[in-house]
Amino acid sequence: MSFSNENLKHQLYVIIFGTHTKAGKIFDIALIIAIFTSLIVLVLSSIPSFDAKWREEFKLIEYGFTALFTIEYLTRLYCSPKPSAYAKSFYGVIDLVAILPTYLVILFPSASLVGVVRALRVMRIFRILKLVRYLQDSNLLLRSLLGARRKIIIFFSTVAILVTILGSFIYIIEGPENGFTSIPQSIYWAIVTITTVGYGDVVPQTTLGKGLAALTMLLGYSILAVPTGIITAELHQEMSAHRALVKCPNCSLAGHESDALFCKYCGSELADPDKRVVPVNTTKT
Amino acid sequence: MSFSNENLKHQLYVIIFGTHTKAGKIFDIALIIAIFTSLIVLVLSSIPSFDAKWREEFKLIEYGFTALFTIEYLTRLYCSPKPSAYAKSFYGVIDLVAILPTYLVILFPSASLVGVVRALRVMRIFRILKLVRYLQDSNLLLRSLLGARRKIIIFFSTVAILVTILGSFIYIIEGPENGFTSIPQSIYWAIVTITTVGYGDVVPQTTLGKGLAALTMLLGYSILAVPTGIITAELHQEMSAHRALVKCPNCSLAGHESDALFCKYCGSELADPDKRVVPVNTTKT
Amino acid sequence: MSFSNENLKHQLYVIIFGTHTKAGKIFDIALIIAIFTSLIVLVLSSIPSFDAKWREEFKLIEYGFTALFTIEYLTRLYCSPKPSAYAKSFYGVIDLVAILPTYLVILFPSASLVGVVRALRVMRIFRILKLVRYLQDSNLLLRSLLGARRKIIIFFSTVAILVTILGSFIYIIEGPENGFTSIPQSIYWAIVTITTVGYGDVVPQTTLGKGLAALTMLLGYSILAVPTGIITAELHQEMSAHRALVKCPNCSLAGHESDALFCKYCGSELADPDKRVVPVNTTKT
Amino acid sequence: MSFSNENLKHQLYVIIFGTHTKAGKIFDIALIIAIFTSLIVLVLSSIPSFDAKWREEFKLIEYGFTALFTIEYLTRLYCSPKPSAYAKSFYGVIDLVAILPTYLVILFPSASLVGVVRALRVMRIFRILKLVRYLQDSNLLLRSLLGARRKIIIFFSTVAILVTILGSFIYIIEGPENGFTSIPQSIYWAIVTITTVGYGDVVPQTTLGKGLAALTMLLGYSILAVPTGIITAELHQEMSAHRALVKCPNCSLAGHESDALFCKYCGSELADPDKRVVPVNTTKT
Repeated sequence: MSFSNENLKHQLYVIIFGTHTKAGKIFDIALIIAIFTSLIVLVLSSIPSFDAKWREEFKLIEYGFTALFTIEYLTRLYCSPKPSAYAKSFYGVIDLVAILPTYLVILFPSASLVGVVRALRVMRIFRILKLVRYLQDSNLLLRSLLGARRKIIIFFSTVAILVTILGSFIYIIEGPENGFTSIPQSIYWAIVTITTVGYGDVVPQTTLGKGLAALTMLLGYSILAVPTGIITAELHQEMSAHRALVKCPNCSLAGHESDALFCKYCGSELADPDKRVVPVNTTKT
Repeated sequence: MSFSNENLKHQLYVIIFGTHTKAGKIFDIALIIAIFTSLIVLVLSSIPSFDAKWREEFKLIEYGFTALFTIEYLTRLYCSPKPSAYAKSFYGVIDLVAILPTYLVILFPSASLVGVVRALRVMRIFRILKLVRYLQDSNLLLRSLLGARRKIIIFFSTVAILVTILGSFIYIIEGPENGFTSIPQSIYWAIVTITTVGYGDVVPQTTLGKGLAALTMLLGYSILAVPTGIITAELHQEMSAHRALVKCPNCSLAGHESDALFCKYCGSELADPDKRVVPVNTTKT
Repeated sequence: MSFSNENLKHQLYVIIFGTHTKAGKIFDIALIIAIFTSLIVLVLSSIPSFDAKWREEFKLIEYGFTALFTIEYLTRLYCSPKPSAYAKSFYGVIDLVAILPTYLVILFPSASLVGVVRALRVMRIFRILKLVRYLQDSNLLLRSLLGARRKIIIFFSTVAILVTILGSFIYIIEGPENGFTSIPQSIYWAIVTITTVGYGDVVPQTTLGKGLAALTMLLGYSILAVPTGIITAELHQEMSAHRALVKCPNCSLAGHESDALFCKYCGSELADPDKRVVPVNTTKT
Repeated sequence: MSFSNENLKHQLYVIIFGTHTKAGKIFDIALIIAIFTSLIVLVLSSIPSFDAKWREEFKLIEYGFTALFTIEYLTRLYCSPKPSAYAKSFYGVIDLVAILPTYLVILFPSASLVGVVRALRVMRIFRILKLVRYLQDSNLLLRSLLGARRKIIIFFSTVAILVTILGSFIYIIEGPENGFTSIPQSIYWAIVTITTVGYGDVVPQTTLGKGLAALTMLLGYSILAVPTGIITAELHQEMSAHRALVKCPNCSLAGHESDALFCKYCGSELADPDKRVVPVNTTKT
């Protein structure tokens, strides 16, 4: 009994957490479809005219999806080798967040705080984060961002200091009479301008203010170059490092593009990119 | 008879599909002029004041161009070695789409659905796609985009998840009373803001909403760096790969710029860039 | 007499066209100050309140500067070895354009076409182009742009086709009743949106239109990466090529930064960057 | 007495200017917290509703922080080996600017010029610049910007000439009747458009004006690529230069990423990145 129980657990684990078996792939596709359908229903139910017509239908479908995701969460907990580790992991928390708001809405009687109920109803949409599980391939991008995190923090600190100073200046120049009612509002304007968003809800009216705005735009225009430069240089380094490590098993020449399947010098097949073993001593001369 | 027929077919094929003979070049230039003229007439006829004045003239010119493009399409079908392959190809479909709407407008009596007729009339402008045939040289750009397609898909999935969550947050914070009438509308706002377009038709009114907007802008400002980094790194790789393969036939030194005509070390003429044979084993040491 | 005349000519030439003598430098600085002062006066005189107060003063100053630039133009013509070559050159045309509008305004009686006179008055500001003469150092940037011109043309053709199609679609979806009065107006909207400018003077009202707008923004957001990638890759290539050619005269190691004055390996002085002779066979192994 | 005085001075110096002792770190963290709290109070006190409620409390807190920063400034002056050098340094001036406005507001009776008092009150926010002291790590970014300063100046001169000409053209085309009241206003519009900010407070009304606007946008869209390309190429060069200099002390292979702690070829620990001695002759072959 205990053995077959363990066996069932393992089989469930392979299907739910694994991605290489056929059953595992079917489960993944079914889950992705369920997430997307559930999201579409949630989005549609937020449109007043749709909500008025099909409120009950939307409610029922939502209950159905919540039940489904609850079963998924419990099964994951059950078949995981270390349930508490799963529950505390990023994906465990997201799987819980995907179902919690619906239960909380049921618990809170509708007569209670309207704002809280609305917030809970909208927060159901955070189940979109369940899809992050299937974006695993983003290693190169993530590593580039992490490799550049120190530079990015310095960049954003600089931007924060800049917008505070520019916002204070425009607050002095334009003042509350032209829509710059407070320093936070003026800093908001500086961010809108330096990022080149330019809503146009608060704009300078005086000549001096327009001059400062022009300066802010040109500044934003040129410092936009800095994060791009950082990411590009990091990405380029990551990609070069990666390319140098891919060698043809036949002629042992390196430098193949990361999606190459055949050696570009002798034409023999390169190892499957996903199974490629990166040799340790490869670039030693 | 049958022979001269085949001969005519082949000659037409060389003129219409080829680009190297004098007649072929004249045909191409004439076609490009016809496409541009036809587009200008279509665009002008959409301006109410012009339409009121010259409606009949525009109609006649349009019929003329449709006849011309129909003859072109039929000739292409006739002289093509495999007519069905041409008809199903990208350019075959575009050549058909360039003439179809005009015939459909004639078939549909003007008394029928106004929307459909307007749509058909506007769709005639899609004959601009016939020009894509003459943008063939875009190989490097296309290869870079294709080489980076996996990263681009991951990037856009991340952006999609981000704008859904940011849109939901602003919907909770601002609510229908400030113009954020539904979740799709709020996601639309998030896209307008994160791409730094900033129409200003929907803007946050509360302090908390403005804070979230500022965050969205800074996020958009910095993740804009990611696609740029991806494309730049890919392009750089493509260009380096290309340069390493161009060798001087005299001193056999590599590393010439892609538009170089003479060797920068010994001054002897490099092979014509279009005829350059890329040696197979060139970078082997 | 003829000799001293020739001598005067040559001396004037050295002062006016040259930049290396002391007198030549003083002339250049005086000219730059004159251009800037003249531009400030022109800009100020276009502000209605300033014009009302100091119209006569502005007129007199403008006549003074025109006289000055006329003398400069005539002297350049006089001392140039080939006056007709100078007159037809880029700078010759600009020097003429800098003075012509003022004379034309005097010739045209103020009673003639108001629009023409205003246009002529504003066109005096094009003397700002005289400053281009002092931006000569922009070789690297220009060469990068020229090296990438084919890719840039392809890029802009693609953008032109894209905005035409996107504009036509929004014209079908939104129609004249929502501000998309004609196809040119709709293409204008598509350009405003795809470049992420986002004035907000024409915005989609329907749900479908907002969806297409969101698509246009994301498209613009990502294809913005393409020109950046092109320029960056070109610039990087230009800079690498330049660095590889700078060698230390003592230890003959290459790879010095373009603004380095001393060898970073042995500390001996590098040749003056402006006088550096680029060796012909330098990277041959 | 004199000795212990010197001793006290030195100990204070280590705590206040140093960052490596425990006391020094505690001082730094306390100072950062004080700066942030003071900034939050300043920002909140600029919001009318908050100011009305807690004006006296804000005043008292501000006096407290000014006293604190005054003590800090005087101690720095006291314990600095060369007080006058500190007072004239960038950080010395900022430390003074952080306290001066408050004293000036006290000196100026509130009956004096309202504008000046408001400006002084807002300028207290410039104490945010005290934080720059803790952004020291930005060497790579700064060096890249400095290395590219010549190209950046040329770029901005080109942009300045472009917006002046584009602004003049739109002023001729649209004129005061469409909101383009003067040349400075038109140049302001050109900057708003070319940087893709697009407030929408001044927009072209005529067809010709819209055409010029579209051209300006596409121009801005593509020249945005130039500063990015410059910074990226510089950053890439700086990073490559840095990487080539980091060598494994065990196997002496170079090319390690700047944040690597262990050699990627033999696994032995690399020197602490902050203590790494860059060998002089490292890349000599």
